[in-house]
Formats: sequence, structure tokens, C-alpha cells
Amino acid sequence: MARMDPSSVKALCFDVFGTVVDWRSSIIREGEAFGTSIGITVDWPAFADRWRAMYQPAMEEVRAGKRGWVKLDDLHRESLGKVAVEFGLKGVLAGDLDELNRAWHRLDPWPDTVQGLTRLKRKFVLATLSNGNVALLVNMAKRAGLPWDAILGAEVTRYYKPQPGCYLGTAAMLGLKPAECALVAAHNNDLAVAQGLGFKTILVTRPTEHGPGQTKDLTAERDWDVVARDFFDLADQLGC
Amino acid sequence: MARMDPSSVKALCFDVFGTVVDWRSSIIREGEAFGTSIGITVDWPAFADRWRAMYQPAMEEVRAGKRGWVKLDDLHRESLGKVAVEFGLKGVLAGDLDELNRAWHRLDPWPDTVQGLTRLKRKFVLATLSNGNVALLVNMAKRAGLPWDAILGAEVTRYYKPQPGCYLGTAAMLGLKPAECALVAAHNNDLAVAQGLGFKTILVTRPTEHGPGQTKDLTAERDWDVVARDFFDLADQLGC
Repeated sequence: MARMDPSSVKALCFDVFGTVVDWRSSIIREGEAFGTSIGITVDWPAFADRWRAMYQPAMEEVRAGKRGWVKLDDLHRESLGKVAVEFGLKGVLAGDLDELNRAWHRLDPWPDTVQGLTRLKRKFVLATLSNGNVALLVNMAKRAGLPWDAILGAEVTRYYKPQPGCYLGTAAMLGLKPAECALVAAHNNDLAVAQGLGFKTILVTRPTEHGPGQTKDLTAERDWDVVARDFFDLADQLGC
Repeated sequence: MARMDPSSVKALCFDVFGTVVDWRSSIIREGEAFGTSIGITVDWPAFADRWRAMYQPAMEEVRAGKRGWVKLDDLHRESLGKVAVEFGLKGVLAGDLDELNRAWHRLDPWPDTVQGLTRLKRKFVLATLSNGNVALLVNMAKRAGLPWDAILGAEVTRYYKPQPGCYLGTAAMLGLKPAECALVAAHNNDLAVAQGLGFKTILVTRPTEHGPGQTKDLTAERDWDVVARDFFDLADQLGC
């Protein structure tokens, strides 16, 4: 059951990769189709994991101020160039890699996502609080039918999570205090930062985000305000 | 008929005040309810016009760099303080004026707006390209049922129209070239700036935006790509 009073919360702010969409299965699917189209064979699950493993280090250069603002599409593309070399795709055309990079705009939602969000939208403002850039999130939403009220997070605040400015800037743009916003995420570390900044916290577990052998984020590591199995369970707990 | 090839356009970017919502009637309605609730009588049409007349000068201070970024909610509130004095509302509590200021979050759409946007959304990304701040536009959309894909424009780009950065920053966040975006506006001057920056241009006439005696923006002053009577007509012309 929800510990927080749902009426004190005006906006649900969503982590997206892993929480709303199943990035790993989607990148594997996109990779397989890409490989078939250009006639190459690759261990796509390993490729997807390696590509994603470069996500935090790539953002860290921006967070640390080693370079100016670079949107996630461009960080993904830089990482892809490196992964492609590691996986022996040296002969693939840059334009084809550009197209593969757009796979991040075509991630599939979890089975409960669209219906769950639609229920939650009746009662709350639904905003992204994601490191994804606006175009990525808009195209993803358009394809998958995600009913966001606002696309916020890293690009509009110019801070990558877990920098406080990403969370606080998102709440400020919504005209809300942090305590009027809940972060919905499948990741305990994201929630811990948000909680420290005054957000309410909602863990939705996604036990196969990292594939069948996932060991982390299977359970709540702190006393989050709400813990839910999926967005249906969350909608039930919040009375939507 | 539409002169442009609709398939060349990916996003429709909307001016909001006047184009999507009927700000004047709504502010008059809100003013009348406010006056009744606190027991005062005011010429609300004149009040609405005066309040709106302070809109451009207020933004101009930000555009000219005389002050840092100030969101439109705060500019509206500053102007309201001055209008209230001009109209003899000196005794009204600041908290009551704060509430009246939120009238801009509760503007009513034109009769064709919601259905028209819903049709246009099937084929295009629909984004705001407004000087309104995010919270204002999100709350307005939530109340009126405006089906935006993204809330963009001044606050996320930190430029007020007609500064080029507002238009170009919005297109960039959508991951699009200006020529892949059309500005939809009821104002010839807004369209002229957008056209100069490479946007496609769509005039939707709103002949009562400024009340029964409106004299400007009744017709196209240039050869815009599309001229439409309302959003139904626009959806027809764009094959939605």
C-alpha cells in the first residue's frame, strides 16, 4: 500500500530507460534487424549491454564539465562508433550506424506501460525525468503511445541525472515544490538522489531490465514511499 | 489548399495565446468570477486588454538583457500588480492577485481546438512554440485536454519570441531542421520571423482574439504556406 498521501503529489516524474521501456530487448531486436539488413552476424545481447555500459561514462564527461552540453543522441552515437569497432563492424557505413543509433527512439514499452500511464494521467501530471533528449523521448512516445503531459529532464535543464539540477529544474518547470513531485524509477540509486532533494519516491521493479540474470534493483533498498510491481499495481495503489 | 507538401513537415509548432486559446474571453471570465468572489466591480474587458498590453514590454526587458531570465508567470504577476493599481484595486490581497494570475493557466480553447489538434496529432508531432512557461502550458493543456506531444518554446530555450533562439531551439530539440517544422499562428508578425528562419508557415485566423472590434491579423499579409479558418480547416488541408 502507498505510504504517502497521493493527494499531496501533483506530478509523477518518470525515469524512462528501464522503468517505462525495455531498452535491452528493444536494442537487441533493432540490432538483429539491422544485422540482417546489412548481412552481418553479431552477438546482439552482448552488443546491447556493451553499448549501454558506455552510457554513464559518456554522461560523466559532461557532468564533470570536461565538455559542454552534449545531448544523449550524440553520446549514444559516439559510443556506438566505439562498440562497432570492438565488435568488428569496421566496414559499416557511418550512415547505417546513424540509423542504428535511432534504435533508442524506438524502444518498446513494458506490457503494462501504456495502459498504466493512461490510468495515472487521469489524476497526475505525467512528465519524463530522463537523461534522454527531447527528440528521442518525443519520437519514442509517438511510436509507443506514451501519454506524457511534458517532456522534461536532462536536455531542458542541461543537467544529467544524478545531478541535482536535473530533478530540481524539472520540478521548477512544472511550477511545483519537490515534495509535490514523485520520481517513479526502477532504480534504487535514482530514487535515493530524488529523496535527498525532497521528492516523493516510487520504486517500480523491472526484474528483467538487464536480462534473465539480473541481480540488482530486484527489491527496495530503502523505505520508498511506494513500491509497485508494475504500472497497473501503481495505479491501483494511487487510486487511479 | 495547402501550398506546401505536408509530407515534408514533421512537426507543427503552435503559437498558443490567441491561436490555440481565447485568452481575452477567458481572462474576462476569470476576472468577473474573481471580482464577484471578493466583492469588487471592474471593467474586465478593459482590464484584460491592459494586462495583455503589458506583455510585450515586460518580455522586452528580458529580451534586451536588462534582466536575467524571468518566466512568463512572473512577468504576468508583475504586470498584474501594476494593472491592479491602475484599476483601483489597491486593497486586494497579494495572495488573491496570485490566484488571479493563475487565470493564464485556465484559458479556454477555441471551439475547434481540441478536436482539430487530435486530428492533426495523427500525422504530425504537435509542440508548443509559445512564450508561456512550462507550468502554465502544462496546466492549461491538462484542463482543456490539449494533446501536445511536447511543451517547448520560451522557457526551455530561454529566448522569448521573436528572438530567433526560441524558434531554432525548439526545432533543434525536436531533432528537426527548421524546414521540417511549421509554425501555426494567428499572427502575421510571428509567421514572418519563423519564415525568415526557414520554418514553414501556417496562418490560422482568429478574428475575435482581440474582441469584436479587431482590425489586425484578419487576413494573410504574406504568401504563407497554408492559410486556414480554424483547426478543422487546417486538418482538412493537411489530409488529417
